[in-house]
Amino acid sequence: MKTQVAIIGAGPSGLLLGQLLHRAGIDNVIVERKDPDYILSRIRAGVLEQGTVDLLREASVSARMDAEGLVHDGFELAFDGRSERIDLSALTGGKTVMVYGQTEVTRDLMQARAAAGALTVYEADQVQPHDMNSDSPYLTFQHNGETVRLDCDYIAGCDGFHGVSRQAIPAEALSVFERTYPFGWLGILADTPPVNHELIYANHERGFALCSMRSATRTRYYLQVGAEEQVEDWSDQRFWDELKRRLPAPVAERLVTGPSIEKSIAPLRSFVVEPMQYGRLFLLGDAAHIVPPTGAKGLNLAASDVSTLYRILLKVYREGRTDLLQKYSHICLRRVWKAERFSWWMTSMLHRFPDTDAFGQRMQQTELDYFVGSPAGRQTIAENYVGLPYEDIE
Amino acid sequence: MKTQVAIIGAGPSGLLLGQLLHRAGIDNVIVERKDPDYILSRIRAGVLEQGTVDLLREASVSARMDAEGLVHDGFELAFDGRSERIDLSALTGGKTVMVYGQTEVTRDLMQARAAAGALTVYEADQVQPHDMNSDSPYLTFQHNGETVRLDCDYIAGCDGFHGVSRQAIPAEALSVFERTYPFGWLGILADTPPVNHELIYANHERGFALCSMRSATRTRYYLQVGAEEQVEDWSDQRFWDELKRRLPAPVAERLVTGPSIEKSIAPLRSFVVEPMQYGRLFLLGDAAHIVPPTGAKGLNLAASDVSTLYRILLKVYREGRTDLLQKYSHICLRRVWKAERFSWWMTSMLHRFPDTDAFGQRMQQTELDYFVGSPAGRQTIAENYVGLPYEDIE
Repeated sequence: MKTQVAIIGAGPSGLLLGQLLHRAGIDNVIVERKDPDYILSRIRAGVLEQGTVDLLREASVSARMDAEGLVHDGFELAFDGRSERIDLSALTGGKTVMVYGQTEVTRDLMQARAAAGALTVYEADQVQPHDMNSDSPYLTFQHNGETVRLDCDYIAGCDGFHGVSRQAIPAEALSVFERTYPFGWLGILADTPPVNHELIYANHERGFALCSMRSATRTRYYLQVGAEEQVEDWSDQRFWDELKRRLPAPVAERLVTGPSIEKSIAPLRSFVVEPMQYGRLFLLGDAAHIVPPTGAKGLNLAASDVSTLYRILLKVYREGRTDLLQKYSHICLRRVWKAERFSWWMTSMLHRFPDTDAFGQRMQQTELDYFVGSPAGRQTIAENYVGLPYEDIE
Repeated sequence: MKTQVAIIGAGPSGLLLGQLLHRAGIDNVIVERKDPDYILSRIRAGVLEQGTVDLLREASVSARMDAEGLVHDGFELAFDGRSERIDLSALTGGKTVMVYGQTEVTRDLMQARAAAGALTVYEADQVQPHDMNSDSPYLTFQHNGETVRLDCDYIAGCDGFHGVSRQAIPAEALSVFERTYPFGWLGILADTPPVNHELIYANHERGFALCSMRSATRTRYYLQVGAEEQVEDWSDQRFWDELKRRLPAPVAERLVTGPSIEKSIAPLRSFVVEPMQYGRLFLLGDAAHIVPPTGAKGLNLAASDVSTLYRILLKVYREGRTDLLQKYSHICLRRVWKAERFSWWMTSMLHRFPDTDAFGQRMQQTELDYFVGSPAGRQTIAENYVGLPYEDIE
């Protein structure tokens, strides 16, 4: 089997890259270890930056998002007994974010790919990239009991943090940057009306809380919990009681509770590898970097990697600009590090850290107080939240 | 002996408060442990915020500063092989800073006080505040072998970090917030022309460096050094060689060296006590808070405390507004914490920290890259550097 671009992973990054390439007439095959239902069962992010929205529109997969997604032009920061609104639109010259679940993005992309008749090989076992440093790389994998070889020009590694793409690169070729946080997020999904029409990020002495949503009738709430906590120890009642304690009183009073339809604990991690490429293998999204979820940058950062690789491949295939290929990692990392910074900063500013001394605690409070109180400070929050501009590829 | 306001300490805070009070017809006596020459021999800060400049003008001690001081409307941040200018004036609607040594400020204030005929008791031993919680506080001290009692309405503690004022407050009445940094600043004073017409703050892999000045012919340079370093181990030659290594090449090439006329190592510390008052004793400046010198906030923060106490005492004596006295600490601390934050942030962003991991190192680089690259980020730096607005006293 032969294609131009072999894509490992049928999550949103792989599907979006495949869709953009397909529309540009660049042949591609996606190889995925799991089946579609498994992928769609994963509950992930829900806030899309302007740039991500624009890219989905460019890929012609935005119809349902534009119909059902919720445009948010602000969010609330609650701390020290008060709640302050960050007016994204006013602070960024009209930019906004779109609340639309990653699961829905993935579903739309799957349908578009099916409609286009482009090939996704699901349930491919033992996927392995080969000869990435030659002019003729290829993938092998097991499918329906057979070993398949997929020859290609380039390999896009969109298979996430635990995927094979990054692991296929010799360890000595990569520098790893990592930070783990001494807590996790306990998340709940419920079919209840959102407590607020915009997101609320709450810094509270009992720990961070986030009121988010997926739609006008489905909510997503989070609590900071200790790294050792077990989801089994958190009944719905305990979750709602704790959430109410961490929200400003007027918000807590109007919180509508209900049975959870999903509940899970996720660790928080910052992670980057450099470079994000090895010969003709390119890493995108979580395969190359992880951000803690505070600030909603994970999916959006994957989208900007997709945009970068897509635009480079366009120039490669249309103009023979193979020189640009070597710049992929450098171009991506400029934006990656800034998003890592914002995610780390939002995490640092909003959570309780068990080892923080009294001075550190005051620095956190003052950081919030200063940044929210200063127009320039608010602007730095807003411009990062809606997403910094994509980098030029030349 | 009796006065309205007894001031402990004849450094710039005590002298400035005394001068302002004297001009307003409020009687005051300054009691100081050392002699004037000792005080004038201390090399201290040299960058005055707009608000400090305005306050010195209000106190009518600005003639020499306005004639000899250097107005700076920007400074340089050097990192990652490049140098970026922070245009203070453009970013803050015309605000600037004034380069004029603390020693000169103190000298001007001493002369003004002598000209006014106001009393400063130098070489006062064993200064002790008494009955701060009564309506009749007083100081005692030894002078020329006699015990002197100074009755007063209020006591202003302007005697610095090691002074008696804070120590006179019962420990259980104070909350202490403190951070020490694992390095110091090795400073040198030399009669050489400044290497640049504006200050240069340099983040370098060998450590932080600062090119400052006192005048067009006197320079003040600093190097980050290990906490255990001894000044004896730093010959002038070694200092200049190390400084050149840490500066951008074009700057290093034009550096003019010369014999040092002062050389010393200072530790870096963040420190705040709350509250900044105890009954009728008020703490000002270093008696209540210390900032690391990165960002030049120490003297300026003392000046804003002086401004706050002066404005409150004016209303107390002219309008009987004794209710404002209880607000002193709260009003000061709002601004103190923001200056502590900026000083901590500038220190964190510009120095090498021995224990920082690879991720932390990248966060520091990205923080610089983002804040300098974003107009809003630059504005946050500029508005803090020129000094956040003074808080209202009501």
